[in-house]
Amino acid sequence: MSSVAPLGRGPKVRAAVLAAAVDELSEHGYAAFTVDNVAQRAGVHKTTVYRRWPDRDDLIADALADSVAAEIPIPDTGSIEDDLRALARSLVAWISSPSGRAVLAVMLANATGQPAPPASTRHAFRDRIRKALPVVTRAVERGELAAGTNPAELIKTLVAPIYFRALITRESVDDSTADAAAAVAMAAARAGVFG
Amino acid sequence: MSSVAPLGRGPKVRAAVLAAAVDELSEHGYAAFTVDNVAQRAGVHKTTVYRRWPDRDDLIADALADSVAAEIPIPDTGSIEDDLRALARSLVAWISSPSGRAVLAVMLANATGQPAPPASTRHAFRDRIRKALPVVTRAVERGELAAGTNPAELIKTLVAPIYFRALITRESVDDSTADAAAAVAMAAARAGVFG
Repeated sequence: MSSVAPLGRGPKVRAAVLAAAVDELSEHGYAAFTVDNVAQRAGVHKTTVYRRWPDRDDLIADALADSVAAEIPIPDTGSIEDDLRALARSLVAWISSPSGRAVLAVMLANATGQPAPPASTRHAFRDRIRKALPVVTRAVERGELAAGTNPAELIKTLVAPIYFRALITRESVDDSTADAAAAVAMAAARAGVFG
Repeated sequence: MSSVAPLGRGPKVRAAVLAAAVDELSEHGYAAFTVDNVAQRAGVHKTTVYRRWPDRDDLIADALADSVAAEIPIPDTGSIEDDLRALARSLVAWISSPSGRAVLAVMLANATGQPAPPASTRHAFRDRIRKALPVVTRAVERGELAAGTNPAELIKTLVAPIYFRALITRESVDDSTADAAAAVAMAAARAGVFG
């Protein structure tokens, strides 16, 4: 019995390959990333990987998106203030974790001219912002925020100061950073800046 | 007559060396940066450079700070809203320029695990934020903002979404990005978020 058989061909294979891809990226970075290594780590044949992800960068993009989605769940507490704080706190926790920093290093590599996947970088961050938009649209539906509030602008305002401190000024970030970011986004939303 | 003599020993030497250092960083990056190359480009002897900047990273930090200071002047219009917009628009123009992107690539290099100058990185960004604080303290003195408004928090809120888009989501930034960032910072300041 080969090591491939137990995984079967369904969602489990996908999950195993994506998890292996994140581990490979975390340990060896983008430049050293190969489908062969991912396949070996996941215990599947490399043709199984190529069949689903003909392009190496598509595999990386899916792996990054999957990792972020697992680590930063989208809250739905019924209160926009609580949702924004929860979202910001999850982001802070993820950014502060070893796997978060490793994934971010790959996502950011092309900001500094290293060999890197530009499409994956953009996709993973944009995909992330897109997935968080319902937090805002639900608040508009509940009447907590004005109709016409731009969800993407609000979410970017929420996360920007956290990324800025963690990656650019290289300050430590914590729950108070997250809560302040949520307060800024709420104040701006209430003032109609995103409308 | 050597090429050193015309520069003399005063502020002109300093300016020439710092400008040469920025050009070297822009063209060849941090890893290939050498004092010898900077001295040659500036037309001074390398001992002249070593005497003022015994540590290579100190020279880089001063060069980055100098470049940013020249490109992003600190406004003093008498109105906090106008000052914040002017500051944000200068930042957008600088980030969009070839030299701005080159300097930023060096400043950010250590976010992605490349050989890079951590101290210089932090110093240049923090120095930049520190220099902009009077924009806020003057507004507090004029009574435009509440006493107790935290200047650093306000300035970071202003610049974070611009850096976030330019470097992380890799969107283009323009004057409307700058004006929106200023509006967010003002709304949050008025709501007392920085107090």
